[in-house]
Amino acid sequence: MHRFAPLLMTLAVAAAQAQPADFTPSDRVESLLSQMTLAEKVGQMTQLTLTPLAVAPSQGSGRVEMDAAKLREAVVDRGIGSIINVHDDALPVEGWHALLREIQTVALEEGRLGIPVLYGIDNVHGANYVVGGTIFPHGVGMGATFDRDLAEQAGIVTASESAAAGLTWNFAPVMDVGRQPLWPRFYETFGEDPFLAGELGAATIRGLQASGEIAATMKHYLGYGGPISGKDRTPIEGSMRVVRERHLPPFAAAVEAGAMTVMINSGEIDGVPVHASQYWLTDVLRGELGFEGVAVTDWEDIIFLHTRHRVAPTMKDAVRMAVEAGIDISMTPYDYDFTDLLVELVEEGTIPESRVDESVRRILTLKEKLHLFDEPHPNPALAGDVGTDAHTEAARQAARQSITLLKNEGAILPLAPEAKVAVIGPAADDLTALHGGWSYTWQGTDDQFFPEGSPTLLDAIRTRAAGASYARGATWTDADDVEAAVAAAQEADVVVLALGETGYAEWVGDIEDLALPDAQLDLAQAVIATGTPVVLVLLEGRPRLINRIASGVQAVVMGYWPGSEGAEALAETLFGEVNPSGRLSMTYPDGPNGITAYDHKYPEALGVGFTRIPDGFVPQFEFGDGLSYTTFAASGLSTSEAEIGTDGEVDVEVTITNTGDRAGRHAVLLFSRQHFASLTPHVRRLRDFSDVDLEPGESETVRFTLTPEDLAFIGLDGRPVVEPGTFSVMIDDQEATFEVIGPVRFLADVPRR
Amino acid sequence: MHRFAPLLMTLAVAAAQAQPADFTPSDRVESLLSQMTLAEKVGQMTQLTLTPLAVAPSQGSGRVEMDAAKLREAVVDRGIGSIINVHDDALPVEGWHALLREIQTVALEEGRLGIPVLYGIDNVHGANYVVGGTIFPHGVGMGATFDRDLAEQAGIVTASESAAAGLTWNFAPVMDVGRQPLWPRFYETFGEDPFLAGELGAATIRGLQASGEIAATMKHYLGYGGPISGKDRTPIEGSMRVVRERHLPPFAAAVEAGAMTVMINSGEIDGVPVHASQYWLTDVLRGELGFEGVAVTDWEDIIFLHTRHRVAPTMKDAVRMAVEAGIDISMTPYDYDFTDLLVELVEEGTIPESRVDESVRRILTLKEKLHLFDEPHPNPALAGDVGTDAHTEAARQAARQSITLLKNEGAILPLAPEAKVAVIGPAADDLTALHGGWSYTWQGTDDQFFPEGSPTLLDAIRTRAAGASYARGATWTDADDVEAAVAAAQEADVVVLALGETGYAEWVGDIEDLALPDAQLDLAQAVIATGTPVVLVLLEGRPRLINRIASGVQAVVMGYWPGSEGAEALAETLFGEVNPSGRLSMTYPDGPNGITAYDHKYPEALGVGFTRIPDGFVPQFEFGDGLSYTTFAASGLSTSEAEIGTDGEVDVEVTITNTGDRAGRHAVLLFSRQHFASLTPHVRRLRDFSDVDLEPGESETVRFTLTPEDLAFIGLDGRPVVEPGTFSVMIDDQEATFEVIGPVRFLADVPRR
Repeated sequence: MHRFAPLLMTLAVAAAQAQPADFTPSDRVESLLSQMTLAEKVGQMTQLTLTPLAVAPSQGSGRVEMDAAKLREAVVDRGIGSIINVHDDALPVEGWHALLREIQTVALEEGRLGIPVLYGIDNVHGANYVVGGTIFPHGVGMGATFDRDLAEQAGIVTASESAAAGLTWNFAPVMDVGRQPLWPRFYETFGEDPFLAGELGAATIRGLQASGEIAATMKHYLGYGGPISGKDRTPIEGSMRVVRERHLPPFAAAVEAGAMTVMINSGEIDGVPVHASQYWLTDVLRGELGFEGVAVTDWEDIIFLHTRHRVAPTMKDAVRMAVEAGIDISMTPYDYDFTDLLVELVEEGTIPESRVDESVRRILTLKEKLHLFDEPHPNPALAGDVGTDAHTEAARQAARQSITLLKNEGAILPLAPEAKVAVIGPAADDLTALHGGWSYTWQGTDDQFFPEGSPTLLDAIRTRAAGASYARGATWTDADDVEAAVAAAQEADVVVLALGETGYAEWVGDIEDLALPDAQLDLAQAVIATGTPVVLVLLEGRPRLINRIASGVQAVVMGYWPGSEGAEALAETLFGEVNPSGRLSMTYPDGPNGITAYDHKYPEALGVGFTRIPDGFVPQFEFGDGLSYTTFAASGLSTSEAEIGTDGEVDVEVTITNTGDRAGRHAVLLFSRQHFASLTPHVRRLRDFSDVDLEPGESETVRFTLTPEDLAFIGLDGRPVVEPGTFSVMIDDQEATFEVIGPVRFLADVPRR
Repeated sequence: MHRFAPLLMTLAVAAAQAQPADFTPSDRVESLLSQMTLAEKVGQMTQLTLTPLAVAPSQGSGRVEMDAAKLREAVVDRGIGSIINVHDDALPVEGWHALLREIQTVALEEGRLGIPVLYGIDNVHGANYVVGGTIFPHGVGMGATFDRDLAEQAGIVTASESAAAGLTWNFAPVMDVGRQPLWPRFYETFGEDPFLAGELGAATIRGLQASGEIAATMKHYLGYGGPISGKDRTPIEGSMRVVRERHLPPFAAAVEAGAMTVMINSGEIDGVPVHASQYWLTDVLRGELGFEGVAVTDWEDIIFLHTRHRVAPTMKDAVRMAVEAGIDISMTPYDYDFTDLLVELVEEGTIPESRVDESVRRILTLKEKLHLFDEPHPNPALAGDVGTDAHTEAARQAARQSITLLKNEGAILPLAPEAKVAVIGPAADDLTALHGGWSYTWQGTDDQFFPEGSPTLLDAIRTRAAGASYARGATWTDADDVEAAVAAAQEADVVVLALGETGYAEWVGDIEDLALPDAQLDLAQAVIATGTPVVLVLLEGRPRLINRIASGVQAVVMGYWPGSEGAEALAETLFGEVNPSGRLSMTYPDGPNGITAYDHKYPEALGVGFTRIPDGFVPQFEFGDGLSYTTFAASGLSTSEAEIGTDGEVDVEVTITNTGDRAGRHAVLLFSRQHFASLTPHVRRLRDFSDVDLEPGESETVRFTLTPEDLAFIGLDGRPVVEPGTFSVMIDDQEATFEVIGPVRFLADVPRR
């Protein structure tokens, strides 16, 4: 299904042919390696950020003034292999070209061997560090589209705009699963389900790498997405088995999709920092997953082995442990301690030079794959590929499909064109609430860097309802003339109440309380009290609790952080120009401590009373929830076989009918469950998804195939296992059952689901 | 240190000699076993509750009318080995005597072999199912005493009063650690620390079993105390390593203290229900811990292997799995499905009869140890041992020592005798808020069953300040004439505001939000707004959040659920008759999602910003917090050695001085930390504790010895390991360092700390 313009279809074809990246070194790489000194090799493994090499931040000037001496020291004397990041705000294409040309010129002309520098950046939802870059919804909104093609297109567009700026290494996508909604990087994930994250992440990687100009980074391997405390970079709890079942599959999918690089999780698994884990970084990543590409640390994470995790008594031990574990590049990113210590470790014989060679081969191979040896400079001919109409349309389509209608009492939506609308709330006239973190600046909170003329939700509503009144009523955290908001509500036929979050990225977004701030909830209650119907629009990176107000509003529209086209897409949806089709990629909790994912075990659903299983679990909204302005009915769910072996496959089909009076799209989600198993089974697991576009009255039959991989779970020993027994498949309200017979069967590969 | 009356000192001496229970069967046991049919053996493994055997609940009548036919069917025809529980409310001693005599008479006179019946009951904080029974603080309050002798005395008193009623098998103490404050059984634990739980739990077991008349039950083995969702009986997350480090040590201590029986955790560990885990129930419990006694399931938990955990495709599979795993007695507790199916399983050869024999040997040996063969009936001579002055004094002392003063701004406490006091809040004039769950009824919420004349906090205050005004201001969940409370506050010199929780037990206490209900917090804010100083008294089973109000009150007194002497002990403390000495046995969180235990890893303490380690972790109140009306200073912390081997010991000493002007008790808590280790070290771990009673100006030197067990952590393979490196010991604000040198050393036994 392609509901968007057929842009860049050549690349889509290329993407479809993606396969695991082959890092067999070329003769050129081997020849270069043979000429390199130890210091030069270790230099390639060193990555600095821009800050220590620049005179001053860009601060909106459009360029970064480099410190020539420090740049030379880094690139020539130290021979560092890569540089990362912005130094303040996004640069225009010309700014990037100037910067990258300056860096490469020094490296190529003054470096002994003329090795180009890799430049890495977090263009995580579009080219968000390029001025005028097209910004897509963040991951959790992309997840709600349940649309692989859309994710792939987002990758293609992001790659195109990154390449336009001359950027070749993109630290995206996030392949972590969002198992903890407090986590301030929750929004960067494709939601809580491993299979969904794997499919959309793999599609994004295929898109990013389709042109052959860009390396994607699957991040953050492994186990980042479920911190117990919800704080960024804090430990998860879970056995090896749970990590393999919940966190590993998306990375298996990413490797299969050809991801060329990986970034390591800053956290720890069972007391072992991942950056120090040979088991996870070498045995599993390279041995089991077959990853051949480049592994880069996250920010300062080797230092943190010493100062934070405290598994390394000295910085030198930290360097040793990380290199022995399997990292290729250290994002140091301010100094050369790593570099000097690694040279020492090799010289004293602690680490064999052959280990360094392994990493350098990979790094040089990556540079070669990105054509940096032959075309080291940005290509001016591509400079116009930013913010094109086709890119904008792709982002618009993504935003449209992400928007998730969670409640629509009395069909209050879509709004009548003549309705007297009051627009209220801190997210209504605010660009940060549309873009979220990683948008032109790191935190995404600096309004001045958004493209001129970007509409807010209020702007987009007023192009359709010119007379709409507006009163903010609250800032993100404080009341702000609630009376004016109440007055506006009283005079309106309907209120569009836009609540949520301003941008944040990483630990800056840590919170102690998942609830929306009191000021916003109090504003909502005051507006609800007027009796005017309220349409609640949520613009937020994670499911901030609305249990205090959810029953009082007539409609709930989950907008996530929908990106640069989000305001228009939301207005299109509110006024019925677009029929919403998003389905939640996460569970929306109904209480601060009621956090349970959709794929829980039966006993997790225990509510008050022993017997309420599995219906004890009733969150605010469930994974997969999402309404339309039309209605769909599923029927005839059936399996091709009543009984298969533990090595067998079964086809599943279901017919979806548009039973309402509007055309619409319906994402079809296939779940399965095993009735009994030797380890407590999940109540359901997402096994596949597709979608249909149907006119009123139209039907379409959708088919899926379940393989043994879909029937397996991870056994206590970490191996995927298929056990005989009764299975159900479930689609919407339909359920069908089949039997699996035969001997217990262990699968050889890490499953992608 | 003994600050209480030297009651029952003979038993205390006996308790000191406790050792692991020896279940070598006697000749009588072997002889009986040889005469038993399979059905009779399986009957011994069957446990029923009273309900299906009775005509009607007691309902305050003081007796349970048994259904003679059903009792005969159970005890004679089926030959069931044990019965449990109350059938409604507590019974008076005479009621118990009548009931137990009736049961034993049928068993002995009509049973083919005349085997007496075991009767088990949850006397969890005193003889709470005996009318007039002395009620101690619940576990988390006992934990705050940091006093092993007190815990032992509580055990002795509980045993004495249970024996008075003829009850011989007590389902206590809870050895689980309270790692999740939402959990509705949090209050039954001795707090969040494994060592503290082990020490106080072992002391309780020694006390309970000192007379030789009572069997204690260490419960609930294993991993019950940290459910991710906070709901009762839901799964924990954690690796085998974490379970061994956090949950197993208290059970090792309990076995060493001689616990004769164990009750199994209803939850699951890494996908395996504990009731179906041969690894945990046999390999670890019997193999590693050396436990020889009787293992009983929890309520319906074999059924739940089929219906809830879904690891057993049929009920018959469930029975097989549980028996193969290692249970001895199934608390079925309503029917004979277990019994019939186990007979089938043995007859068809699936389970060898020798496996049944193992369990029956243990059950008969337990009955013999409890003298049930020779003295099957309650001893009328003991009937007076309930609610004696000595027992009451022990409970009073426990309540006194548990009370924890967490804030005392401007020395607002102790109250001046002449102060004009307003007493406000739902916990002020309410007995349920003093006793909590498991108090004369299961939920502890039925006021009519508390002993006549039991004082509420208001009553106890008025005996000291007769003119104290009172206004409730709120029920547990709703406002209730807040205006009257505000008016009372306005007219007072000081407000004693008693907030908290009414009783609950098990899943009935499940909550979604740790915060105190809004009505209570709103009341507090209204009272605070009057400007009259507020002393907040918390009577609650878990640390309900007070972050909205904590800064507005002048004093915070944590009362936990202090038991039948709690009101007096609180009033004594408020008016300065007693100097408080409790120290928190838990971390008191400051936000709904800010739940982190004191012994976290460094990275868990990450707050906003990378560098705030370890001081990023600032809860409402910390583990070990607790003020006094005097002040104490620690000085001269030192170790006997600067350097020891990995098999060495080190003595630690510190001098505590009472630097204030009142006599007082100070619990001395010894923490240690390893600076660097191969697995991320904890910021600190409690390693020992003691206490001192000091007059003003007096000093005392306290000594501890750290053994290799105290320096070990659990390695990835589950073995305790001592690694060389730098260690610190910390007491109050003192820290001293020593070095451990030598080879890495693995310890053979499961550590108790």
